[in-house]
Amino acid sequence: MNLVVQKFGGTSVKDAERIFNVAQIIADTYRAGNNVVAVVSAQGDTTDDLIAKAQEINPMASKREMDVLLSTGEQISMSLLAMALERMGLPVISLTGWQAGMLTDSTHGASRIRRINKERLDNELAKRNIVIVAGFQGINRYDDITTLGRGGSDTSAVALAAALHADLCQIYTDVDGVYTADPRLVKNAHKMDEITYDEMLELATLGAGVLHNRSVEMAKKYNVNLEVLSSYTKNPGTKIKEVVKVEKMLIRGVARDNDVARISIIGVPDQPGIAFKIFSQLAAKKVNVDIILQSIGRDGTKDISFTVSRSHKQLALELMEEINERCGGKGIICDDNISKVSIVGAGMQSNPGVASKMFEALSEANINIQMISTSEIKISVLVALGDSERAVNAIHDAFDL
Amino acid sequence: MNLVVQKFGGTSVKDAERIFNVAQIIADTYRAGNNVVAVVSAQGDTTDDLIAKAQEINPMASKREMDVLLSTGEQISMSLLAMALERMGLPVISLTGWQAGMLTDSTHGASRIRRINKERLDNELAKRNIVIVAGFQGINRYDDITTLGRGGSDTSAVALAAALHADLCQIYTDVDGVYTADPRLVKNAHKMDEITYDEMLELATLGAGVLHNRSVEMAKKYNVNLEVLSSYTKNPGTKIKEVVKVEKMLIRGVARDNDVARISIIGVPDQPGIAFKIFSQLAAKKVNVDIILQSIGRDGTKDISFTVSRSHKQLALELMEEINERCGGKGIICDDNISKVSIVGAGMQSNPGVASKMFEALSEANINIQMISTSEIKISVLVALGDSERAVNAIHDAFDL
Repeated sequence: MNLVVQKFGGTSVKDAERIFNVAQIIADTYRAGNNVVAVVSAQGDTTDDLIAKAQEINPMASKREMDVLLSTGEQISMSLLAMALERMGLPVISLTGWQAGMLTDSTHGASRIRRINKERLDNELAKRNIVIVAGFQGINRYDDITTLGRGGSDTSAVALAAALHADLCQIYTDVDGVYTADPRLVKNAHKMDEITYDEMLELATLGAGVLHNRSVEMAKKYNVNLEVLSSYTKNPGTKIKEVVKVEKMLIRGVARDNDVARISIIGVPDQPGIAFKIFSQLAAKKVNVDIILQSIGRDGTKDISFTVSRSHKQLALELMEEINERCGGKGIICDDNISKVSIVGAGMQSNPGVASKMFEALSEANINIQMISTSEIKISVLVALGDSERAVNAIHDAFDL
Repeated sequence: MNLVVQKFGGTSVKDAERIFNVAQIIADTYRAGNNVVAVVSAQGDTTDDLIAKAQEINPMASKREMDVLLSTGEQISMSLLAMALERMGLPVISLTGWQAGMLTDSTHGASRIRRINKERLDNELAKRNIVIVAGFQGINRYDDITTLGRGGSDTSAVALAAALHADLCQIYTDVDGVYTADPRLVKNAHKMDEITYDEMLELATLGAGVLHNRSVEMAKKYNVNLEVLSSYTKNPGTKIKEVVKVEKMLIRGVARDNDVARISIIGVPDQPGIAFKIFSQLAAKKVNVDIILQSIGRDGTKDISFTVSRSHKQLALELMEEINERCGGKGIICDDNISKVSIVGAGMQSNPGVASKMFEALSEANINIQMISTSEIKISVLVALGDSERAVNAIHDAFDL
């Protein structure tokens, strides 16, 4: 008998109609002879509503109590889903994070799963029960309720699939798979049948937004067969695995991320320790830096540029002003009217033609490249925000995706 | 250091303003040097809202899943209350039923508390933390969430007070104590300072509606000092204990209960086993019978009358029709246009004048008595529904309450 872990997000269980739709997917999987563990998020806007309730009482509420509050969202949706399956005559039981043995560390609000105590899960599956598990939550070793942070239900599902050695972990969302580009942006973007963990990771980081990054990392680590598919259609989704069928295509997809600001500190002394000074200060303030570029030294000075998310722009700017003053730099330039456009593909590194083809496409579209960054399976460029949609389309066409 | 258990009902925590009001009561108690365990119900209409959600999905949902769903209500209110106390700078921690060690039997929806595992509670109190506990809920020995049924938060509070040997258990409601009669019915009803457990039990059963009956039984069993008081005023409430100061007054209060239907089965054979047949059938269908009267036999037949709550009327009638047919009875009479009016008082039994004084008052008010039932500390009469308010006032006046 195969075991399938299925995860359903908040929109997939937002009302009674959607809950019955999800129950039908589970029932079909179960009746086909599989054991099923279903992981659910809170219904629609429940989490936001609970946060609003807490804000009204205490905007500085402790993270421990926030976790107690927020974890009720999944508890509600899991019991409603179980009731729907009961109505369909199926044997089912719902389990909260602690009942399902989801043991986490104590970082309330952003916990990591340490271990899954499988005893209860194994018992219920042995009885051929469908098991509904509350996503996003667990307990720490003091028996306090913890949450994994936003998007954590994906991680719950993958962790359960890994612990239970599931044959497949299906992530149901409101899109039917991973696309070569955002279909709202690129008309002829198409769904990929398969993609590797690393490619998915790059795409997730780049704002493709389909899967929570930590869940993909965990799937790769434990070699969990992932599939992203839609709860709204019956179409096959995109499979994410270690090795995919070799295809001619090197480039897996194009992604765009507009949540980016570029900051440059100009004319700082070209001497050791400057970069350390800058990035250790940013790290101390928990500012996540994405792309980093350092110009080669000239006239004893150099320029250092980096990108941060827009919410970190102000803080980063303040830190840089300070450093600029202390180091005798020539000033700060900041631009947040930009976009990061990236291509991702596993075979890219060994194919030097890929980068030039991308740059050629942008050049032909008369789009100026402001910054370039490359990794093993990714090339990112910064372009003006107004150019980004044309850039994605130009690249998509050039690579014939 | 004294330990005070305080219980707050759903209306006492229904919104942010009321939650801060409750937090202030707790803070005052804590700052006066007491340890505090606060038990909370779900906010306002939360439980009804959750039941409506379940009804939409599956009107026949299992009681286990209903308990999973309903228990979120108290979890939400306990965390919000904890956040309010955090905001006031007080050390506080909220605990669900299972975290607080509330171990129950497995009767989902109407569980009984078997034992309280005090370890976590003791630890938190030793740290001088205010402990907020979700009322109404626990876990069974399979680690499944259970609920104690409506009004169960009172029982949670008393059980905690008993287990922790609390010095006082305060039940905060929207009335400020136990009255000699319903103040909405009787203008000059007055609040009692003290009352015994037994008197309170009779009053609770009679529909005074201030305290959940099981909680009073448990308080009596474990000799927990109870106090009923209002979260809206600072007035002292009513203390409920084993022995109260001896007062001249024998009668403690007058109560009225309109949720009553009288059923009579007429002219059944006056032979052994008839009563058994009737009441075993009712018990098998879980119909709670209140007053039972059996006429003396005449012409070889007798009449048996009893009262049930109105929700059980139809079922009881059907059972009686059946028995009437099988036994060759002369028919069934049913009347639900009636009310039960009762007086309660510990010294009543040794004072034969009490009953006659009550009947005299009713007679003078020209109110017909349909049925009479007496116990050690209670006399109940059935009167026409339209007479009940006058009956309560007449009795209240007669006994000079």
